[in-house]
Amino acid sequence: MNINSPVPVGVFGASGYVGQELLRLLAGHPGASLVFATAESAAGERVEGLRLVRADDAPLDRAEVVLSALPHGISGRYVQEARAVGKRAVDLSADFRLSPDAVYGLTEVARPRVARAELVANPGCYPTAALLALIPLAQCGLIDESREVVIDAASGVTGAGRNPTRELLFGEVAEDFRAYAVGNEHRHLPELRATLARESGFAGDLVFTPHLLPVKRGILETIHVPLSRVLDQATAEGIYETVYADEPCVRVLHGALPSLKDVVYRNRVALGVAAVGNVRRPRLTVIAAIDNLVKGAAGQAIQNMNVMLGLPETLGLTC
Amino acid sequence: MNINSPVPVGVFGASGYVGQELLRLLAGHPGASLVFATAESAAGERVEGLRLVRADDAPLDRAEVVLSALPHGISGRYVQEARAVGKRAVDLSADFRLSPDAVYGLTEVARPRVARAELVANPGCYPTAALLALIPLAQCGLIDESREVVIDAASGVTGAGRNPTRELLFGEVAEDFRAYAVGNEHRHLPELRATLARESGFAGDLVFTPHLLPVKRGILETIHVPLSRVLDQATAEGIYETVYADEPCVRVLHGALPSLKDVVYRNRVALGVAAVGNVRRPRLTVIAAIDNLVKGAAGQAIQNMNVMLGLPETLGLTC
Amino acid sequence: MNINSPVPVGVFGASGYVGQELLRLLAGHPGASLVFATAESAAGERVEGLRLVRADDAPLDRAEVVLSALPHGISGRYVQEARAVGKRAVDLSADFRLSPDAVYGLTEVARPRVARAELVANPGCYPTAALLALIPLAQCGLIDESREVVIDAASGVTGAGRNPTRELLFGEVAEDFRAYAVGNEHRHLPELRATLARESGFAGDLVFTPHLLPVKRGILETIHVPLSRVLDQATAEGIYETVYADEPCVRVLHGALPSLKDVVYRNRVALGVAAVGNVRRPRLTVIAAIDNLVKGAAGQAIQNMNVMLGLPETLGLTC
Amino acid sequence: MNINSPVPVGVFGASGYVGQELLRLLAGHPGASLVFATAESAAGERVEGLRLVRADDAPLDRAEVVLSALPHGISGRYVQEARAVGKRAVDLSADFRLSPDAVYGLTEVARPRVARAELVANPGCYPTAALLALIPLAQCGLIDESREVVIDAASGVTGAGRNPTRELLFGEVAEDFRAYAVGNEHRHLPELRATLARESGFAGDLVFTPHLLPVKRGILETIHVPLSRVLDQATAEGIYETVYADEPCVRVLHGALPSLKDVVYRNRVALGVAAVGNVRRPRLTVIAAIDNLVKGAAGQAIQNMNVMLGLPETLGLTC
Repeated sequence: MNINSPVPVGVFGASGYVGQELLRLLAGHPGASLVFATAESAAGERVEGLRLVRADDAPLDRAEVVLSALPHGISGRYVQEARAVGKRAVDLSADFRLSPDAVYGLTEVARPRVARAELVANPGCYPTAALLALIPLAQCGLIDESREVVIDAASGVTGAGRNPTRELLFGEVAEDFRAYAVGNEHRHLPELRATLARESGFAGDLVFTPHLLPVKRGILETIHVPLSRVLDQATAEGIYETVYADEPCVRVLHGALPSLKDVVYRNRVALGVAAVGNVRRPRLTVIAAIDNLVKGAAGQAIQNMNVMLGLPETLGLTC
Repeated sequence: MNINSPVPVGVFGASGYVGQELLRLLAGHPGASLVFATAESAAGERVEGLRLVRADDAPLDRAEVVLSALPHGISGRYVQEARAVGKRAVDLSADFRLSPDAVYGLTEVARPRVARAELVANPGCYPTAALLALIPLAQCGLIDESREVVIDAASGVTGAGRNPTRELLFGEVAEDFRAYAVGNEHRHLPELRATLARESGFAGDLVFTPHLLPVKRGILETIHVPLSRVLDQATAEGIYETVYADEPCVRVLHGALPSLKDVVYRNRVALGVAAVGNVRRPRLTVIAAIDNLVKGAAGQAIQNMNVMLGLPETLGLTC
Repeated sequence: MNINSPVPVGVFGASGYVGQELLRLLAGHPGASLVFATAESAAGERVEGLRLVRADDAPLDRAEVVLSALPHGISGRYVQEARAVGKRAVDLSADFRLSPDAVYGLTEVARPRVARAELVANPGCYPTAALLALIPLAQCGLIDESREVVIDAASGVTGAGRNPTRELLFGEVAEDFRAYAVGNEHRHLPELRATLARESGFAGDLVFTPHLLPVKRGILETIHVPLSRVLDQATAEGIYETVYADEPCVRVLHGALPSLKDVVYRNRVALGVAAVGNVRRPRLTVIAAIDNLVKGAAGQAIQNMNVMLGLPETLGLTC
Repeated sequence: MNINSPVPVGVFGASGYVGQELLRLLAGHPGASLVFATAESAAGERVEGLRLVRADDAPLDRAEVVLSALPHGISGRYVQEARAVGKRAVDLSADFRLSPDAVYGLTEVARPRVARAELVANPGCYPTAALLALIPLAQCGLIDESREVVIDAASGVTGAGRNPTRELLFGEVAEDFRAYAVGNEHRHLPELRATLARESGFAGDLVFTPHLLPVKRGILETIHVPLSRVLDQATAEGIYETVYADEPCVRVLHGALPSLKDVVYRNRVALGVAAVGNVRRPRLTVIAAIDNLVKGAAGQAIQNMNVMLGLPETLGLTC
């Protein structure tokens, strides 16, 4: 890496929570230089020393790589424009996550493909945690596919975006907790299911229920795994430890379970397991925690960008 | 009820969160008069117009009914003393919940027994919500006992008591979320399992995982029920509606799911259901919410006391 | 009071935080019966057993008293309509607070006038706390008017209303704290200044700075009073104790200072004082706390309504 | 700076909130290498790759610089020991803040002295914000010393330390707000008064009232300044802008006021001003915000360490 010539990076959609996090992380990234950042109603304002421009006015030619945190349905268009003029891109929206034109950028699983990719679809926040928790077990054939995998996930409110709606007001969310998209209705589920099948051959059923937490950032997923054979805690930890031995952004806990404070402001998934007692058939509970804005969005996008550019994978990131 | 002669009530253990809630509710109860309240380190202080005394100094003879919110292991002794001098008692600790000497006071299920009881063991907060959600389905034989019922529960911190420990400091809990007692290790589980079997004949397995929420009060339980036959949302709502038609403290939602704000400061369980899509075998997700300090503790104790005394069941309570 | 014939009450503006609190309090009020409640976008929904109607469709004839929590600028019109058909009214907006046509309803100060009033302008939340703290000192000539009275006030977010704006999102307010309307720009200031002058003759300067707290409800005001002569803590407490001896909704603390938890969900102002050391001229710091939705709005409105109707002043209220 | 040979640094008191923040910042500091970190009950645990040792077992000889976040009264002894064997030290406790043996390390004011210091007393969190706000005005003679400067400060709970006490439990602090040490009783006041006098000659009176905020980190101070002559907002901003033109860790806002979100996780003080209207004599309100754990403690300690070692002043810090 030639630290004297940082890579010029452009950011679409810089005024939402994910976009702000991209700017924060890029400001501390020694190998990248922010050349434009877009916003619509906030266009003209200065952020991190740069004046925000409208997406239609983005000076694409100045960037070598483009990161887009625009909303689903809008992002795809601007990413295509960037691709059309030869720019490599990481799209943080859902627009390309199920598309064969993009590499699905769960870095730990797709690193070689990401390195060669022109377009990376950055994974959703919930799938990132669930996939890193489930793929090792599924790949080893340890999940009993005749019983459902039940995932209860809870996310901080920045996961719901920054558009003002009554249900996201402090007066509604503080001291509250609720489930939403109950009954397998969440839009992340097809992405989760498809990726898990592709990477591990898993063919069982999933029940995924997200909840809204009264915190700003962080996701905790409590993943109930029916096992095809008995696994004690140490053995299960050993499996994760082996699979993720060389991964800088995965932390396997031993004899402990992660909570949000282990992961916020870090580009890390933390994993812990417990064998379930007092049941007739073997079960494992896996707890996975990430910061929805970092490993669940902006941080993983930069991790992917680093891999694409041949930079050290965690440059500019705290893991 | 003769409103001119309120029943004299004594409270053991008035300085914890449950004890404080008992005093708050009794202060607004038109049919009860607080005659003593005990505390140890806070003995001598005045609360709600009464001077706190040490438990050993409680003037038992002045009370007709005794409510105890003392810690597990300590409560039983003082309740026995009160019983020995002929006082009726509601014990909010776990000391008698599995004992044949007490009536397990899940009011909606045990009302006639509570009415005649000399000693009521007030249910735990987590079991209260789970039992009111599961008993109707189990009684109807709707649960497929070959698959596990998975319960993910989240509680506000007042459920963990008021003794100062580092892990309950604001600086640790705020912006955090974590699971605990993972792997079926929670001490409420035997109570839940035994009561569910007794009241409904349920013989399947449960997986119960509590979590600590950064809120002061409230419990939300997301209960994943494998079904023995398909139930759509309206039918499932109808079952609950029928079972709880005359229950003042149970609220069944229609086409909606409860959150903590529906129940805090109320002696109410709120229930909502959703059928689960995209799975091969039928499943229902039930969401149950209570205020851990009210329907999960002090409120239900007063509901039971009202039943014992022949007072209107919800006197002094907001349902 | 004839408890068998509750007074029929109508509520304008029932969907905001203050309106919701009015409905909550009226639901537990044994001397009042809610006959209509209005909302615009939520018209048609059922709340507390009543179907919300649009303000223009309010059946005014059914009510004996009308309470309006409509926004400033809109409320006045509907209150005038109610007055035109002979209904007594309490307006919780600012529309009549400086008007000679209404009695300014700081109950403790204006009780006899409120009792005879056809129209009561319910005080703003910030002025309620500040006035009850300052009037006793000002009436006794204890404030040195050559130096400014400095009031730093902090309010929970329900004080800012329930309309969705970005700055009130949980993601913006949680873990934040900020001043607003700095430099004596708050719209409550003329009301505070005029009332203080009218009730006590105070002619000094005020500096009032509100802040937004990351809590749902509650106001704490730290009031810095330059004194015309030395007052120690006990003497200052004695002054308040004397002035408010018979007031059910004012609580004077001794040797302690109030915090929000002393007042939330209560129709109470709590007051505490401390003499200031290490300064050359005498000063007193007064801390005043209220629940902005109760004594600062809906509770005081019901307190005023009770006075207007000759009901016990605190009926339906917890003080 | 020779980036290939980072300076060996030892940390006393690594288990409290300030100590944890020191470790977090040092972990990302390219010019420093942590050689020991002490804790008492947590001795033996691994943090950031290092095993914690008891303070009495600290291998002082391995360090070139020592940072101490031990409690007041204990820190001084260990810092003296380090000094006795020739180690330079930054003491984050109050033990040397009023001592002639140490340089008071408000970096922006004392930079040349810090550069030469063997022992730096790191300022308290509240004084850091207040001094950077008041010194420029006092040095220009703009404060009317015949009237008191009133400072209302609010701090997140990490400022109160990590020892478990009931009053710092989540169940007590959440949804609460309270003043403490009211009446000029806070132990930071002598430090604030002495430094302000020394650096600016200010001889007026201060009234300082701290409050406890339900947030994890951050301090906001609302500083009410009586002026000796009229200053409009732009002029006041210009004064700060001029004084702090070259300061990397001071941010002067224009036409806006800072809130906690502008400063958390940053080694920055943010300053904003507003002229006060509707008063007879000129007044300015200054709002100062810092992160109590960063610019108010660990960050400023590292800023000072950098200056002592001749490293770039903000190395390892986000300003």
